Amino acid sequence: MPVPTHIFDPPFNIVRASHVALDVTDLAKSRAFYEGAIGLHVEDADGSAVYLRGVEERQHHSLVLRQADGASCRRMGFKLGTEADLDKAAAHFAKLGLKHDFVTAPYQGRTLHVTDPAGMPLEFVATMEKREILLQQYDRYRGVRPQRLDHFNVFAPEVQASLDFYASLGFRLTEYAEEDGPNGRIAAGWMHRKGNVHDLAFTNGAGPRLHHFCYWTPTALDIIHLCDVMATTGYLPNMERGPGRHGISNAFFLYVRDPDGHRLELYTSDYHTMDPDHEPIRWSLRDPRRQTLWGSPAPRSWFEEGTPFHGTTPRDAAFAANVVIAS
Amino acid sequence: MPVPTHIFDPPFNIVRASHVALDVTDLAKSRAFYEGAIGLHVEDADGSAVYLRGVEERQHHSLVLRQADGASCRRMGFKLGTEADLDKAAAHFAKLGLKHDFVTAPYQGRTLHVTDPAGMPLEFVATMEKREILLQQYDRYRGVRPQRLDHFNVFAPEVQASLDFYASLGFRLTEYAEEDGPNGRIAAGWMHRKGNVHDLAFTNGAGPRLHHFCYWTPTALDIIHLCDVMATTGYLPNMERGPGRHGISNAFFLYVRDPDGHRLELYTSDYHTMDPDHEPIRWSLRDPRRQTLWGSPAPRSWFEEGTPFHGTTPRDAAFAANVVIAS
Amino acid sequence: MPVPTHIFDPPFNIVRASHVALDVTDLAKSRAFYEGAIGLHVEDADGSAVYLRGVEERQHHSLVLRQADGASCRRMGFKLGTEADLDKAAAHFAKLGLKHDFVTAPYQGRTLHVTDPAGMPLEFVATMEKREILLQQYDRYRGVRPQRLDHFNVFAPEVQASLDFYASLGFRLTEYAEEDGPNGRIAAGWMHRKGNVHDLAFTNGAGPRLHHFCYWTPTALDIIHLCDVMATTGYLPNMERGPGRHGISNAFFLYVRDPDGHRLELYTSDYHTMDPDHEPIRWSLRDPRRQTLWGSPAPRSWFEEGTPFHGTTPRDAAFAANVVIAS
Amino acid sequence: MPVPTHIFDPPFNIVRASHVALDVTDLAKSRAFYEGAIGLHVEDADGSAVYLRGVEERQHHSLVLRQADGASCRRMGFKLGTEADLDKAAAHFAKLGLKHDFVTAPYQGRTLHVTDPAGMPLEFVATMEKREILLQQYDRYRGVRPQRLDHFNVFAPEVQASLDFYASLGFRLTEYAEEDGPNGRIAAGWMHRKGNVHDLAFTNGAGPRLHHFCYWTPTALDIIHLCDVMATTGYLPNMERGPGRHGISNAFFLYVRDPDGHRLELYTSDYHTMDPDHEPIRWSLRDPRRQTLWGSPAPRSWFEEGTPFHGTTPRDAAFAANVVIAS
Repeated sequence: MPVPTHIFDPPFNIVRASHVALDVTDLAKSRAFYEGAIGLHVEDADGSAVYLRGVEERQHHSLVLRQADGASCRRMGFKLGTEADLDKAAAHFAKLGLKHDFVTAPYQGRTLHVTDPAGMPLEFVATMEKREILLQQYDRYRGVRPQRLDHFNVFAPEVQASLDFYASLGFRLTEYAEEDGPNGRIAAGWMHRKGNVHDLAFTNGAGPRLHHFCYWTPTALDIIHLCDVMATTGYLPNMERGPGRHGISNAFFLYVRDPDGHRLELYTSDYHTMDPDHEPIRWSLRDPRRQTLWGSPAPRSWFEEGTPFHGTTPRDAAFAANVVIAS
Repeated sequence: MPVPTHIFDPPFNIVRASHVALDVTDLAKSRAFYEGAIGLHVEDADGSAVYLRGVEERQHHSLVLRQADGASCRRMGFKLGTEADLDKAAAHFAKLGLKHDFVTAPYQGRTLHVTDPAGMPLEFVATMEKREILLQQYDRYRGVRPQRLDHFNVFAPEVQASLDFYASLGFRLTEYAEEDGPNGRIAAGWMHRKGNVHDLAFTNGAGPRLHHFCYWTPTALDIIHLCDVMATTGYLPNMERGPGRHGISNAFFLYVRDPDGHRLELYTSDYHTMDPDHEPIRWSLRDPRRQTLWGSPAPRSWFEEGTPFHGTTPRDAAFAANVVIAS
Repeated sequence: MPVPTHIFDPPFNIVRASHVALDVTDLAKSRAFYEGAIGLHVEDADGSAVYLRGVEERQHHSLVLRQADGASCRRMGFKLGTEADLDKAAAHFAKLGLKHDFVTAPYQGRTLHVTDPAGMPLEFVATMEKREILLQQYDRYRGVRPQRLDHFNVFAPEVQASLDFYASLGFRLTEYAEEDGPNGRIAAGWMHRKGNVHDLAFTNGAGPRLHHFCYWTPTALDIIHLCDVMATTGYLPNMERGPGRHGISNAFFLYVRDPDGHRLELYTSDYHTMDPDHEPIRWSLRDPRRQTLWGSPAPRSWFEEGTPFHGTTPRDAAFAANVVIAS
Repeated sequence: MPVPTHIFDPPFNIVRASHVALDVTDLAKSRAFYEGAIGLHVEDADGSAVYLRGVEERQHHSLVLRQADGASCRRMGFKLGTEADLDKAAAHFAKLGLKHDFVTAPYQGRTLHVTDPAGMPLEFVATMEKREILLQQYDRYRGVRPQRLDHFNVFAPEVQASLDFYASLGFRLTEYAEEDGPNGRIAAGWMHRKGNVHDLAFTNGAGPRLHHFCYWTPTALDIIHLCDVMATTGYLPNMERGPGRHGISNAFFLYVRDPDGHRLELYTSDYHTMDPDHEPIRWSLRDPRRQTLWGSPAPRSWFEEGTPFHGTTPRDAAFAANVVIAS
């Protein structure tokens, strides 16, 4: 199948993955997880929401937890270049006939809500309230020492269509997994805006659903320490996969589940991709090192479970997901 | 069951685990594995044997590979305090009616062969030819940067009997895994002479067989690098278990298999045990963090497969090993 | 003094620092240093030049060593977005009256030579021959495991003028050191294109001269290992400064000198800067943590010595450099 | 000069360095330093004393801070094998005519105070109250994650005499620094009981004074993190030397000063020395890599300043210390 070609001169400038808003069913429990175990910093909190960020992030929050009756992902947030890009984005989505709306959101500048063609709820901001960087307030480092939100990964029922749509917004493919043979379909793709392996990835599966969001950590030893902490503080069942080395992205990783089952990846040491002539890497679905370079398979839950997007009903994947599970 | 009490004033002084001699079926292939991938240093080699050591070891070898028709472990070697200890050892084993013999072995001083009551072939030396320490010849660091042989782990058909015998030689128990309940049997025990978690461990299983021998490495990152190297140089099938953190010993570990299936552990960061009033830690067989603190189970091969001792026929375990596998 | 404001819509698109060409007086000795100790990969070599790259780089080379009678830096190379950007660049420099020329260079696409207003020799390419990425050929990792060229740092006789010029090419300031007081002059500035702390930095001093070029390494432990290797292989006199943590950039660093005295930095773990509203960090010249967060001063050589650019005569700094040395 | 030969069958069994008692002039400030910055665990505290330990230590304390009018070291504590060893020790010191006394000390078993021939106040215990090991309570890891007290280093006016005395108690020399030439005097020596590089070291200088005590940490990255924390929490002036690699001991180290100037070393990755035929390593005083493998000199304060032992008046060194400073 054709590898999607990104647009070099996109209709508006998306800078990077910026923040995510999650509905959680027990706010105190979720805060204890993200602040106490993971080590994110609570910037603001009230009875209904908690706002967190990593030590490198100068924006008010990259994770918003909201008390709700059911667990879901409300929105995945992306940062645009300027206010003008927000208006260009609105015009572009209007032209495409996609549902969109400017809303107000606490601590954020003008916020544009959009539902993508697959039904995923996005939000775009050009600005957010700024806070002092904590990168050199080393005594405030906790847990896995999360530095910054890195990317989102979603289950897509039609991976090729999703890749094509985001390529048309300027996202660039860096790696992809494909069936072998002349008619092999792409089963997963990783796309970036900010110059590393990804801001947004798509995996074949019933969706749209959020597979995981990811924070960057300084070193693999921080991830190993998080394993030790989680295993000895009652979070043993929340450790789902890893630590290990991804073949795809080359990152050292760990996947954990929060108290509602939302999946968080901790991740370090991928590579640069900002060259315009950077070519994507193809992986065969038959290569077990794709997912874990060291060969260890992911558990079934990792292939099947994900967070629903609020108000969205997942559809079945366009083709059998078991090619992925089998590998 | 009673926890074995070691003898404070043993009949002779065993200092530590010292070396191991393995029969291998393709000497070149085995050398490529231990020198090329693992990073041990070849001190001497001829057509029939290769002698290797870690960067910290001043003795001529800690691993001997010998070309043979079948794969087996010839001997596990221990270092005694002095030449006088060798004679005391011979006298002690004579008194016990155990088969023993002084032999000559290349690069080693007087060498005492003994078969223990379970049928395990041991060898004792007080001295070996010395070589220059490589610890500060940093450009010779390779692979996982193995520093020193740390310990042996064996399948024992009667763990309690083995623990009792080695306690009578001065080995001291540091950790053990036990069935729950008033009549719970010990299923595994870790014993030391040199002051860390172990020189010799016993696991319930058909035996005697060598479960693994272990080299100490400087950091967990060296072990992660070995995973990356093995996964990308054709050794993917040789990666059996880990990396992970042991509950028992607290060490960060990896288990790999050599070309003949001999199992090697890479291991770092356990703790000191030299206090005479140091008390052993008990683990319930039901606690999954015992084997991997992070909860991930070991593969079936790890519980079942091992290296036969040359000329020894393993016996079935005294009680069902599945209590171990189940955990 | 006014902090320079970069141009959001630059006259042509510079992607990042790309490569550097050094004249060396003993090619074999220099190759031994960069290949043997540092661990860069030799992609091509003949009697007069050696071409090297890091494990992450897909371009043919990021370092060119050329045999010459005297040591100097021939050119600092930057990668442009497309071939069209090369022509736009030529037109822009023509308009500015700057000396420029299209030349042919081995393994590189069309190559534009330019001398900047301060007299620095630059070269721009949009393409270079591609080579297979070595990132997952882990058995080829050597030395400090250099991943990619990260940035250049130059002595500038007029820092403010240099910052203003490169801001007009789209470089963005991320950190700067300034004299205290209402008329405090900027003594040093760090500017980026690719989204981390810098591609190019300027330090007050007799110039233009190359202060150093820098490779990114995976972790601080790789840098510590390089120290151990250099100290024990005859390179002790080549270790100039560090390891340590920069206040500016937050990176863990080491500075070493090659056999001709060219200065190389090894560097890891800075932060992202791609947000258009990212604000530069100001450091007072009086803050000792600016250069080394831990307070240890740099040696005098680090403030005074640098590599001349070929055919360029350095001028004295516009104001006394001792404000820098004093700190 | 003759290298001291240790006694294989010492008059009583010293197991290892165990604990140290310091007089401090502001107990709250000292507690903030050792608990807050270094990360030791406060096991007990009252208005006049604070008791701390590392995560691996099962004994009640390894560091005692006592409020006092002046700063000093009260006692260096060593652990003996058994209660019987305490009595043998008392008898031995009586025979030598050394001042000694059984005293009671909080949380400790029978405690024997002794003043060594050079005037150093020691204390010996066979037992101390036990506390639960914290090694796998990973959420309680703080600061540099100190694991255990490793050793003491003292200024000795007559190094050779001190080495000889402690050799007569069974301490074994592992490394030493010596003047070159046929009559070269030993300027420093490292001696152990527990099987790594040292429990007690002597450096030529006005004394007896405590040069430093040392805690073992898991990895070099923990030490780097401590540097980052200290530099950004007001402890910048307390960072005295390092981090770096010792030539002697091969350990990665950092020296810091507490609020009273008591010197603490953080240290990791030395090597095993338990073999009875282990031979000491000689270093020439002219080799700069002895103190820091990477060649960087220690500051003057490190050579000259130390903690007085309570009630003891230091004497000048037997020969000029500047041979040490010069290196």
